[in-house]
Amino acid sequence: MPLGERGGWERTESRYCGVETDFSNDVTHLLNFNISTGGFDYVLAPLVDPSYRPSLVEGNGVDTQVLPVCGSDLVLSPSQWSSHVVGKISSWIDLDSEDEVLRMDSETTLKQEIAWATHLSLQACLLPTPKGKSCANYARCVNQILQGLTTLQLWLRVPLVKSEGDSMDDTSEGLNDSWELWNSFRLLCEHDSKLSVALDVLSTLPSETSLGRWMGESVRAAILSTDAFLTNARGYPCLSKRHQKLIAGFFDHAAQVVICGKPVHNLQKPLDSSSEGTEKNPLRIYLDYVAYLFQKMESLSEQERIELGYRDFLQAPLQPLMDNLEAQTYETFERDSVKYIQYQRAVEKALVDRVPDEKASELTTVLMVVGAGRGPLVRASLQAAEETDRKLKVYAVEKNPNAVVTLHNLVKMEGWEDVVTIISCDMRFWNAPEQADILVSELLGSFGDNELSPECLDGAQRFLKPDGISIPSSYTSFIQPITASKLYNDVKAHKDLAHFETAYVVKLHSVAKLAPSQSVFTFTHPNFSTKVNNQRYKKLQFSLPSDAGSALVHGFAGYFDSVLYKDVHLGIEPTTATPNMFSWFPIFFPLRKPVEVHPDTPLEVHFWRCCGSSKVWYEWSVSSPTPSPMHNTNGRSYWVGL
Amino acid sequence: MPLGERGGWERTESRYCGVETDFSNDVTHLLNFNISTGGFDYVLAPLVDPSYRPSLVEGNGVDTQVLPVCGSDLVLSPSQWSSHVVGKISSWIDLDSEDEVLRMDSETTLKQEIAWATHLSLQACLLPTPKGKSCANYARCVNQILQGLTTLQLWLRVPLVKSEGDSMDDTSEGLNDSWELWNSFRLLCEHDSKLSVALDVLSTLPSETSLGRWMGESVRAAILSTDAFLTNARGYPCLSKRHQKLIAGFFDHAAQVVICGKPVHNLQKPLDSSSEGTEKNPLRIYLDYVAYLFQKMESLSEQERIELGYRDFLQAPLQPLMDNLEAQTYETFERDSVKYIQYQRAVEKALVDRVPDEKASELTTVLMVVGAGRGPLVRASLQAAEETDRKLKVYAVEKNPNAVVTLHNLVKMEGWEDVVTIISCDMRFWNAPEQADILVSELLGSFGDNELSPECLDGAQRFLKPDGISIPSSYTSFIQPITASKLYNDVKAHKDLAHFETAYVVKLHSVAKLAPSQSVFTFTHPNFSTKVNNQRYKKLQFSLPSDAGSALVHGFAGYFDSVLYKDVHLGIEPTTATPNMFSWFPIFFPLRKPVEVHPDTPLEVHFWRCCGSSKVWYEWSVSSPTPSPMHNTNGRSYWVGL
Repeated sequence: MPLGERGGWERTESRYCGVETDFSNDVTHLLNFNISTGGFDYVLAPLVDPSYRPSLVEGNGVDTQVLPVCGSDLVLSPSQWSSHVVGKISSWIDLDSEDEVLRMDSETTLKQEIAWATHLSLQACLLPTPKGKSCANYARCVNQILQGLTTLQLWLRVPLVKSEGDSMDDTSEGLNDSWELWNSFRLLCEHDSKLSVALDVLSTLPSETSLGRWMGESVRAAILSTDAFLTNARGYPCLSKRHQKLIAGFFDHAAQVVICGKPVHNLQKPLDSSSEGTEKNPLRIYLDYVAYLFQKMESLSEQERIELGYRDFLQAPLQPLMDNLEAQTYETFERDSVKYIQYQRAVEKALVDRVPDEKASELTTVLMVVGAGRGPLVRASLQAAEETDRKLKVYAVEKNPNAVVTLHNLVKMEGWEDVVTIISCDMRFWNAPEQADILVSELLGSFGDNELSPECLDGAQRFLKPDGISIPSSYTSFIQPITASKLYNDVKAHKDLAHFETAYVVKLHSVAKLAPSQSVFTFTHPNFSTKVNNQRYKKLQFSLPSDAGSALVHGFAGYFDSVLYKDVHLGIEPTTATPNMFSWFPIFFPLRKPVEVHPDTPLEVHFWRCCGSSKVWYEWSVSSPTPSPMHNTNGRSYWVGL
Repeated sequence: MPLGERGGWERTESRYCGVETDFSNDVTHLLNFNISTGGFDYVLAPLVDPSYRPSLVEGNGVDTQVLPVCGSDLVLSPSQWSSHVVGKISSWIDLDSEDEVLRMDSETTLKQEIAWATHLSLQACLLPTPKGKSCANYARCVNQILQGLTTLQLWLRVPLVKSEGDSMDDTSEGLNDSWELWNSFRLLCEHDSKLSVALDVLSTLPSETSLGRWMGESVRAAILSTDAFLTNARGYPCLSKRHQKLIAGFFDHAAQVVICGKPVHNLQKPLDSSSEGTEKNPLRIYLDYVAYLFQKMESLSEQERIELGYRDFLQAPLQPLMDNLEAQTYETFERDSVKYIQYQRAVEKALVDRVPDEKASELTTVLMVVGAGRGPLVRASLQAAEETDRKLKVYAVEKNPNAVVTLHNLVKMEGWEDVVTIISCDMRFWNAPEQADILVSELLGSFGDNELSPECLDGAQRFLKPDGISIPSSYTSFIQPITASKLYNDVKAHKDLAHFETAYVVKLHSVAKLAPSQSVFTFTHPNFSTKVNNQRYKKLQFSLPSDAGSALVHGFAGYFDSVLYKDVHLGIEPTTATPNMFSWFPIFFPLRKPVEVHPDTPLEVHFWRCCGSSKVWYEWSVSSPTPSPMHNTNGRSYWVGL
């Protein structure tokens, strides 16, 4: 029985809640008690009797024995096994023990249990937490298993702990930062996409920033101990504000809650007397609280629901200069009213600056929309003229002949024939009959200049008056390092270098932003200097917050901010983003090999914008803490055609 | 005029000596003075007037100008350009300058000069030392250039310096360890094989261990400053013992010496009066000294000359169990007399232990040679019997029917028919008519167990008496981390994962051994325990010497040592290697991505020997300082067939 059905959340995985159980020979009863009676969606249950040890089996060993499993595969239907049971691998296994017999027993058991789980078509198995700091043999064995799996997912159980002390103090026995353990394990397992993490949420939580790292990791389950619950005035379990926030974060990132532990909130018997006769599941009250938290989540907005399908999905950036956009694309962009309102405000301010009130009736401003598409900027400009009572003459220049068709119809329909002249031509090659006062364009990509706005506007400014205004007057790109396991694995799935050297447009969701974004390249228009150079080079240093712990950087999220005119701006850089604008998702620059970064060792990154005779491209690299190879040398993998 | 022609050294590149010169418009004179008169083999000369700056060129810029190069391409023949000139890129270039004009000028110049050098078919160009600690933009530009080069090599000039202070003291301006600079630069350039290093050898040298690192790097030239020379009693230049040793090391590693700087040893004019009229080259005396050092090198032994062609050449290990060896292979191994002398000594000791002198005439020892090949161990065993006056009955078991032919002929020729019984059978499946006192085998690979000696001997020990002796009685594998740029690039050239997950047999030469070797797996025979398990797991930690500085680990050199019987051993582990034995080259386990290691952070490595039903394989990984992915999971890339 899922946690809730409202607010758009019904489309996420996180609405299922499980419960950890002990080993039972009677699986049917186990499911009845926990699912039918208890209301949980599935059990996290051991598959094999925990007292079993391969080396203690009588006779000639492993080949002839029958595994002491929890009932035959016939006890449940295949779909019941699959949807109601997550296998819990025997927690005694210790593949990095000094004791060789224990090590061998552990390896045998692990492989047997996974084979059994595969036979049952389970969706996932939970791997017990590595016993010590060293986990290489465990990882080796899991990695061998992963190569043979097709659908079964493995969840490595890891406690959510990070001591606040200096992690340099390596001599202490305890686990300083469980993220390090997870990171070692998954790197040894080649960052396999079938290996995820299940976090044990305890009563004490690490710092906010260190928790944030996990939002970019592949967390499939939050195992919530009954010990982590507080007690409210009526004796019922509840969670601290920080725990609530964390669980909400997991809901938002498609991680499921699993309740574990003994019931510690024993409500008075009298309350239960009504249901006598049936066996009441004492963990039900914890489930009810989790369901309450789930249902308390804010509903998704219309826009969020539309974008749900795009979350963490890699898209190739548009090449509007080389390719002609399709009607569907224009349609999407034109719906973004916020963007055109900003343009209208910018044009209004420019018109008023250009023509004083007293001359409003005599002077006509020449405004050219370069890259007019199907006309939204023409409309915004005309509205600006109307609002400010200025006279306007508009040239609408558009290179896409398909868009020009729509533009003609628009002008006819709206009766703009006297004001608007349509030019079906690439702005870089048009011979304008006169010079413009204002040049309006929207040629920006997610990373600002990545759709070649600089090159186009350099070509167009020939027909801008020396004192003319360009809207936008400047734009700047930004990047920040992110953890993005899912994106990294999606890039890796292509098994080639080219995809690691390509930038993608992505609705970033399951990512951890590791440091504030910093500006990369700025372009200003018009640019009348004699040697225009649109090549750029920027070196940046990012430092993780001191209490964050280490993190894995899979690449960089990229944004832009644009000054349209004076104080009117437009952009997607998170801290200054224009609200409710949806034309641009961020851009993602992956790294060929993820880089581990520690708060003590800043990340040094280099970005280049390179220009050739027929294309523009970016190169990027990390030089510290360890140098990466250069990405996309000579634009060999990814470029934007001129 | 090469430095020398004797001792086998004539086959190395290092016999050529160059001289660094200033820019000259008159290349013909430059070559006459330095090559014909001076005796050098080539000049390291600037190709473009050093006062040239692209941004200072009159007119509309770079497109219309003629580069101020040192004479047209017609001044020399193509073969003269190629063999007599190494291009020296303008040393003023600074691609990581804060000054954007200088940066752009540098990029333009660098690209122009490399293009000119390519036009002239030069073999190599020398890139000036990066100006600061940051070299990312320089590396980006060089990396772009490298993608387009086919034959031209680029030598990055780096001073050979490493301060003894703690390199943590990063705030100081100077260069602590020039290796770090080289390492960053080449990693940013994707470890390109066309990028090498040219080391400036100064008057002061860093510690011995830190110098050792360079022997595994791609050092093409040692640029020896005249300032580095001392003066001998007769006023002539000479080098310190440490410098001599270093230069000898470079000779041995195919690096060429280039003399640079002003002459500082001005011999009295009178000595020169005989050669008046011709212009004497004042650097000739330095060349003469370098030639003297070269000629002083010890001659290569016969064996070294044979092995010269195998140096740093990757070979797939033999699979003698799965494949039948060829006659050529037997031939090579049988020539290794040292090996058979050791076997003979071991058998002698075993025979004497087995049969006391007083029973020598009555007792016959049953000795089985398993894997008899073409008979060398049969011969060694019979000789041992003769030496010790013991009576012997020999079974020669061999699975290769082609070798059995030779074995038959040998027995007939030598008249051994009464003593030797030939069994044409795989030892694992032979039904022996009696049990053996001594089981002699030589099934060892470079890494000991890698040719499946354990599995073969487990199969053969059925017919060994319970108190019988196995020769060898045990063997142990060893590994040590190495820098091996050349091997890494050769593996990388295959552009697939499989080659990075394969072990190779290699005559290691241009490698730096970074820490003493440590033992990995040991096998003891006979092994009568009930559950024989030939799977192994070993975790090892290696620490670099504290004064070594950081180094790049490209993989691991592997060796073995075997106890044949009691104190008679046989092996290739460098510190205990059997002298003058040539049957085994070391084995090399590469890493998919080289790991940078610092003396403060030990390297933690894991090796596994895994056994399946039809194959045996190794897996390996690094867990510290940064976890590597597991190599060769499930033997997917490299395995030995059972």
